[in-house]
Amino acid sequence: MAEDSTALPTQLAAATLSDVASSSPVESLKAEFSDRVPIRSIISRPDGGAGLAGQRVRVGGWVKTGRKADKDAFAFLELNDGSCPGNLQVIVDAAVADLSPLVPTGTCVAVDGVLKLPPAGTRQKVELRVEKVIHVGQVDPAKYPLPKTKLTLERLREHVHLRSRTNTIAAIARIRNALAYATHTFFQKHGFLYVHTPIITTSDCEGAGEMFQVTTLISEADRLEKDLINNPPPSAADIDAAQLVVKEKGDIVAQLKSAKAEKNEISASVSELKIAKENLARLEERSKLKPGLPKKDGKIDYTHDFFARQAFLTVSGQLQVESYACALSSVYTFGPTFRAENSHTSRHLAEFWMVEPEIAFAELKDDMNCAEAYVRFLCQWLLDNCLDDMEFMADKYDKTCIERLRMVSSTPFERISYTEAVELLEEAVKNGQKFENKSVKWGIDLASEHERYLTEVKFQKPVIVYNYPKDIKAFYMKVNDDCKTVAAMDVLVPKVGELIGGSQREERYEVIQQRIQEMGLPLEPYEWYLDLRRYGTVKHSGFGLGFERMLLFATGIDNIRDVIPFPRYPGRADL
Amino acid sequence: MAEDSTALPTQLAAATLSDVASSSPVESLKAEFSDRVPIRSIISRPDGGAGLAGQRVRVGGWVKTGRKADKDAFAFLELNDGSCPGNLQVIVDAAVADLSPLVPTGTCVAVDGVLKLPPAGTRQKVELRVEKVIHVGQVDPAKYPLPKTKLTLERLREHVHLRSRTNTIAAIARIRNALAYATHTFFQKHGFLYVHTPIITTSDCEGAGEMFQVTTLISEADRLEKDLINNPPPSAADIDAAQLVVKEKGDIVAQLKSAKAEKNEISASVSELKIAKENLARLEERSKLKPGLPKKDGKIDYTHDFFARQAFLTVSGQLQVESYACALSSVYTFGPTFRAENSHTSRHLAEFWMVEPEIAFAELKDDMNCAEAYVRFLCQWLLDNCLDDMEFMADKYDKTCIERLRMVSSTPFERISYTEAVELLEEAVKNGQKFENKSVKWGIDLASEHERYLTEVKFQKPVIVYNYPKDIKAFYMKVNDDCKTVAAMDVLVPKVGELIGGSQREERYEVIQQRIQEMGLPLEPYEWYLDLRRYGTVKHSGFGLGFERMLLFATGIDNIRDVIPFPRYPGRADL
Repeated sequence: MAEDSTALPTQLAAATLSDVASSSPVESLKAEFSDRVPIRSIISRPDGGAGLAGQRVRVGGWVKTGRKADKDAFAFLELNDGSCPGNLQVIVDAAVADLSPLVPTGTCVAVDGVLKLPPAGTRQKVELRVEKVIHVGQVDPAKYPLPKTKLTLERLREHVHLRSRTNTIAAIARIRNALAYATHTFFQKHGFLYVHTPIITTSDCEGAGEMFQVTTLISEADRLEKDLINNPPPSAADIDAAQLVVKEKGDIVAQLKSAKAEKNEISASVSELKIAKENLARLEERSKLKPGLPKKDGKIDYTHDFFARQAFLTVSGQLQVESYACALSSVYTFGPTFRAENSHTSRHLAEFWMVEPEIAFAELKDDMNCAEAYVRFLCQWLLDNCLDDMEFMADKYDKTCIERLRMVSSTPFERISYTEAVELLEEAVKNGQKFENKSVKWGIDLASEHERYLTEVKFQKPVIVYNYPKDIKAFYMKVNDDCKTVAAMDVLVPKVGELIGGSQREERYEVIQQRIQEMGLPLEPYEWYLDLRRYGTVKHSGFGLGFERMLLFATGIDNIRDVIPFPRYPGRADL
Repeated sequence: MAEDSTALPTQLAAATLSDVASSSPVESLKAEFSDRVPIRSIISRPDGGAGLAGQRVRVGGWVKTGRKADKDAFAFLELNDGSCPGNLQVIVDAAVADLSPLVPTGTCVAVDGVLKLPPAGTRQKVELRVEKVIHVGQVDPAKYPLPKTKLTLERLREHVHLRSRTNTIAAIARIRNALAYATHTFFQKHGFLYVHTPIITTSDCEGAGEMFQVTTLISEADRLEKDLINNPPPSAADIDAAQLVVKEKGDIVAQLKSAKAEKNEISASVSELKIAKENLARLEERSKLKPGLPKKDGKIDYTHDFFARQAFLTVSGQLQVESYACALSSVYTFGPTFRAENSHTSRHLAEFWMVEPEIAFAELKDDMNCAEAYVRFLCQWLLDNCLDDMEFMADKYDKTCIERLRMVSSTPFERISYTEAVELLEEAVKNGQKFENKSVKWGIDLASEHERYLTEVKFQKPVIVYNYPKDIKAFYMKVNDDCKTVAAMDVLVPKVGELIGGSQREERYEVIQQRIQEMGLPLEPYEWYLDLRRYGTVKHSGFGLGFERMLLFATGIDNIRDVIPFPRYPGRADL
């Protein structure tokens, strides 16, 4: 650490390795508010770090593999600090440190040393000869839950607090980070404002059945129950006694008054009466306390809940972000959303992240343009910024994942109407294509297998299907002039099927009001949403991208539980 | 809208106003996936838009003020689309459109027109002469909840779905957006990975009292109650009857067997017996159903809850993000956090956003360096990117807010130990400084007035106080060698006091285990956290910045409910 407490941290790392920045501006050593140099800054340079030979650096990381060699004269450590998929080869002389504690997989070490060119014929372009071991965080290999031999992704979910130390979960974390920053960059670049829509919501938009409830009633009831045990409510006798005291004190006041006693004597007795009355009121109040949730007319009384009404976790920020679009024109939200569905599939999470842009003065075609530009931008971003991690994924999980990114980033998306899509599927069935789901005909909701057929088999590129039958879509979607379809669109991509769902929103007050009622929904909770149409209404459109779906698409990973750091699903919410 | 559905939207706006980008690259017209041009692209140019005179554009927005003039021959509309604080003056000829529906405040209009230089002596540098009105979203001024006369910020909270149409809330939204993107940019620039820590958590780290519970038990109980009403559970007589059937069917099987009946006859009777038994089991199961929450041994049985245990909304992502720091070295989280505190102050929300970086191989001084660099970066970012909105805030709310940003962005922070801070406060008291809170002495938790004295009066710049008494700080903070203090630090700034709280984390297994026990906390829920110290432990440090606090600091707004789009506090969770 620098001794000058006011020094900006960028100066710290620069001092450690002062001439590197100039030698390679792109991959220059980055300060990370630590005196170590990220391994990425060394080995991810175009020359693999060879040009840094002779430099003295401090690095820190976790041992991927370690071994002693040359009759225990040296230890070779493959060190990884998470800054990139690659490891730095670190060589420790037995004269420098006790080697045995260094070599177990998972050991944390920080060392000072000199970068050297390795012997000819080795894979790495640079290695570190250690001069001093600064820190060792030991591991007992007999107990460490992540042995050198690989665990399946499923087994790794048992160790969600340690699994980011594996190559796979670390690569996914870096890809996820890149996609998140690419998302912000894309929308900021296009003048969209990031809006934090609420997590706790009282807009029960999609039916309470699939929403998590947020409450303090249960903890309040627990507290009350404990309190009533420690301090039981007054009995009827207690209250009778208190009533008697009130009567007595009242009688005394009356006597003193009728006896025209002295003022201070009367006022003293009045004070005593007041205290007796307060005590009685307190007892009566406490006698009403009952264990359990507060009820009124047989139902839970939510006026006692934290928000004085029933509250839930949001299933989408769309409706709320629309209120900002109808003032600030181009906005987006990117945050967690929740479904309390009892789904045990590899495609569902109870907590997941959504990106939801919303654009005023925009029709469905603008929405499709935005969705296409965004997805292509994300793909290009990964190619530009995460190629090393993508190569790891291609090597270990999905040979086609890099090709897929290249194809999507460079190919205009096919756009077909729902009606055309159904015709293509009917034609495919005629030509022998088998689908497991109900027969294909106009009016059905497309199943995942239909979507994947269109994007993977028929067009072999992303497909946007638009203008869906209104009966299978949400009330807020704009009714088209044909009165049969709504201006909705889904973006389908190979590997995952539906990646994005969006629509132009119905901006006509009378039409949307009628749609709410047609769907059997109550109007009252939507009055605020109707206000957006009552006052200064505007054409607007938006969509939602399931962020974990995008990660499945990018990485080729099969189970959604492995592309979010802390997966939540029925029966599991570790940490 | 462009007719070519595959055209990228950047081409749309470019075609509308093709020569602008080259004339002013910084403020070039941005495509927003709409055929309108953002008003910012016109009036926020260095020349105020004058250089665009003669250009034909489409704009859309909401009327701030409108009036008819020249015996109703013209309407003048001040149009705002949220892209910047300024309005575009729009002039509509009565020959072009019916003027009356255009002028009420709040009306949405989209128009095509030609930019013109205004008459000499007017404030604006450019105005728009309308050729065609494309869209009018009308407003009935008698009903519109946001009249031209200003409402207080408090009154505006009654209209949370419309308040982003006011100048103030729109400016705050743009500043908030800028600070969010600046946050990502800062950490990405320094090699930090963005990690999504969980919102739903089973780590009850700070005591359940202040946490919101997340559950499906109540909705399940409601569903069950309805089900039991529609379909009452079987009576004892129903079950007796079903038992009788089982017995009869069993007797038949026994008879057939002992009579050595034909095989298919026996197996038919066995089938019937099986059905009867299943029916009985179903009835017995249903007879156990009781309305209300599921209980076991008098307590709520959380094995029936969605996650098979009690779950809460997170109060901080720190512990979870530490697990990523102990693998990926430099990470941060930026997400919503929750407190179920019954606080009705202007400084507390039930749902708020936190930025929490965590750095491995970093000590307290590195942590302070990071915090200081981050806060200064945010301030400079606002000066560079939001000066027009900041000028609005300075004009309307806090004359000193721009000065404050300049000072903080350019001034090294003062750093003093807690012990020094207490000495300075004691000295101040001696010299006549009055504090409302308990007497100042070593060991107290500094109150807001103490913090503000240090930063606003004593040093008149940001102050970092470090090394606090261990008894007033959390278990995870690194115990210093003096055994009396921990390596904690708070960043204090003028206007809000504490903006950031952070610490070096205790990385020694034995010490942190002992600290947990000393604080009377159970070890079991922290076993995963202890694993980070058991296996490959590393020095690490981090901090949390309350994002809304930063907004209060930047904007000078007094009430935290006005700097978050959808405020949640006791009794209120609108939308």
